[in-house]
Amino acid sequence: MATIRLWSDQDAANDPVVAAVFADIRATRRSDFINNIWRGLANDPALLERTWANLKTVMGPDGALDPLTKELIYIAVSTMNSCGYCVHSHTAAARAKGMTDAQHGELLAVISMAAYTNSLATSMQVPVDPEFLQPGQ
Amino acid sequence: MATIRLWSDQDAANDPVVAAVFADIRATRRSDFINNIWRGLANDPALLERTWANLKTVMGPDGALDPLTKELIYIAVSTMNSCGYCVHSHTAAARAKGMTDAQHGELLAVISMAAYTNSLATSMQVPVDPEFLQPGQ
Amino acid sequence: MATIRLWSDQDAANDPVVAAVFADIRATRRSDFINNIWRGLANDPALLERTWANLKTVMGPDGALDPLTKELIYIAVSTMNSCGYCVHSHTAAARAKGMTDAQHGELLAVISMAAYTNSLATSMQVPVDPEFLQPGQ
Amino acid sequence: MATIRLWSDQDAANDPVVAAVFADIRATRRSDFINNIWRGLANDPALLERTWANLKTVMGPDGALDPLTKELIYIAVSTMNSCGYCVHSHTAAARAKGMTDAQHGELLAVISMAAYTNSLATSMQVPVDPEFLQPGQ
Amino acid sequence: MATIRLWSDQDAANDPVVAAVFADIRATRRSDFINNIWRGLANDPALLERTWANLKTVMGPDGALDPLTKELIYIAVSTMNSCGYCVHSHTAAARAKGMTDAQHGELLAVISMAAYTNSLATSMQVPVDPEFLQPGQ
Amino acid sequence: MATIRLWSDQDAANDPVVAAVFADIRATRRSDFINNIWRGLANDPALLERTWANLKTVMGPDGALDPLTKELIYIAVSTMNSCGYCVHSHTAAARAKGMTDAQHGELLAVISMAAYTNSLATSMQVPVDPEFLQPGQ
Repeated sequence: MATIRLWSDQDAANDPVVAAVFADIRATRRSDFINNIWRGLANDPALLERTWANLKTVMGPDGALDPLTKELIYIAVSTMNSCGYCVHSHTAAARAKGMTDAQHGELLAVISMAAYTNSLATSMQVPVDPEFLQPGQ
Repeated sequence: MATIRLWSDQDAANDPVVAAVFADIRATRRSDFINNIWRGLANDPALLERTWANLKTVMGPDGALDPLTKELIYIAVSTMNSCGYCVHSHTAAARAKGMTDAQHGELLAVISMAAYTNSLATSMQVPVDPEFLQPGQ
Repeated sequence: MATIRLWSDQDAANDPVVAAVFADIRATRRSDFINNIWRGLANDPALLERTWANLKTVMGPDGALDPLTKELIYIAVSTMNSCGYCVHSHTAAARAKGMTDAQHGELLAVISMAAYTNSLATSMQVPVDPEFLQPGQ
Repeated sequence: MATIRLWSDQDAANDPVVAAVFADIRATRRSDFINNIWRGLANDPALLERTWANLKTVMGPDGALDPLTKELIYIAVSTMNSCGYCVHSHTAAARAKGMTDAQHGELLAVISMAAYTNSLATSMQVPVDPEFLQPGQ
Repeated sequence: MATIRLWSDQDAANDPVVAAVFADIRATRRSDFINNIWRGLANDPALLERTWANLKTVMGPDGALDPLTKELIYIAVSTMNSCGYCVHSHTAAARAKGMTDAQHGELLAVISMAAYTNSLATSMQVPVDPEFLQPGQ
Repeated sequence: MATIRLWSDQDAANDPVVAAVFADIRATRRSDFINNIWRGLANDPALLERTWANLKTVMGPDGALDPLTKELIYIAVSTMNSCGYCVHSHTAAARAKGMTDAQHGELLAVISMAAYTNSLATSMQVPVDPEFLQPGQ
């Protein structure tokens, strides 16, 4: 499985860009664990560096949404994209950030309800109510 | 546009199930406004009734997640399903529940980042790290 | 694999809601077999109960479409959502309800033809012909 | 709207391949109406010809599934692909082949129920039960 | 795994249509290897024959796009459809047609960037600029 | 239409980050035209800035794939995500970069063929051939 090679720590040590990103992942997360998506992205060091920089910015502690809420949204998107890897990794991340079993159950209830009404609105091709439009658009 | 007829209030008055659901929507939301998805679902009164009952339960004020967080998740799912109607209606609902422009911007940042890494994980077919598996599975 | 715990029959026996749903699944299907999606949903007994009640209503023998046709539609949706679990479970269900190999082959032919023309219509952004609109919309 | 030019009947008359396909669509459907997807595909006569030949074969009266059932499956796939054009055209086709309002309502109930459980199975990453596997696989 | 039986070469030898398609796949690709999708499609010989004929035409050496570019597009589509099988088989095909590691990395960069901006355009429901419309539409 | 406000040039002039990004878009593209997605993203200047910086890097003239090939891949992804806005804008961009009608036709042929076989592989749940796996995985 995997269409690319997953880089070991030894492989990473031989590329300064990859080594620096792996070091920053470890420092940011305060954990020695580097999960497989980063080991795959290492095949293109520039893509690895850009992806990590963006993810660190978006999912960091600063911002208008708290870190757990952001993980819940990430799980919702990953589910709709059928990304098994991402559902696994972000459910683990949400648990690490304090998601309770009750919150997980409710997340699943909202995701499935949305998927349900999305398909109804699309199959009926319901026109957008004027009340939902932004003033001035 | 629309593959079904949208029921007017007068149409609804002639069907007791539809009339009861429309009345409950109005009472629950404390607003006279009935948006088009319900007017479309009225063509199948049993489906309308079941859908509203489930939505009211899932999106209601009780539960482990607050109502605004649930709307943000709903927008994320609707975006990934390319449901223009649902993106419009739930963005309006989120605003009505207090979503700020900063929160909306951050929601979009998380959705797009998730779509980005989802496609990377899928194109690389990255195997799930054993660390992400539930103990005992 | 699985982001949640799968409940054994013994686990289920300790929760009255889960126990009742498991019993009803067995009675309805006249089989002792409870498949994994229900064992996963048991983590949120209210979600389990609501999901089973809705599925039982929608997929039951009453209605305007026969049970096998409904399974074929279920397989089509599950395929487009890339839900491997659902494709497996509903293909098995369709076979149990009498789907022949010829019907399965034709189902796949229709699903793939639809996916093919869907992508053409979307890439060309073809406008909807006025002839397809509902009168009065 | 449309990223390509839609061919008029006069345009079609100037290309023998397009003219022949348009004539066959009219003869097969016993109607003078040529809907827009074919007028768009005419920009690539070979693609038009291949697409029509395949569609005619798959959706024709012969086969293990009846024509209306095939249209219902087509609507289900088109809904999940958010293809508004296709939802409109195949809902109209299903009605022309006898779909009743009750059948349409039940189709929507099955589609939405499938989208609902698909998202649950994916978000829980439920493993496939051994009972669903084909013997010998 | 697999909802259908995968045909061995011995099975194929007993059906003239399947045998002919398998022979043509081998002759076209100059390789004895027949991958699993064809072994699954063999369950419906007419579907197998039609699918292979279309694929051979579309992905062949003639045409306005070179074979490697076509494989890159195939990988992009397969990724968005979360088709693990197809991502694996077409990444292997692209490598066999000369895709370098640098090209693979850039392909992934483009796919993920597109998925990212797609979700932004959809969540904002941005109207199409008049400048993008075809003249005369 | 649009769930956010689209910023005019006058709005942009009042925010230094937005003004700088708009100026760079114009300089990079050698055109005064700023399309709507950027006018929508301006509501979150940081998101606008990050998105433009990434897009400029990925879609720029340097790299292992030529700019037109990258636009074709972008159209393929946008089609599968049913992003009408993106299909329109990137088809226009591909034409501006020299895409011929023949290339556009062949692009659509490859996209639709991929969508077709993707759905077949998923509905059959075909296991990945060992030949497609990376050595050492």
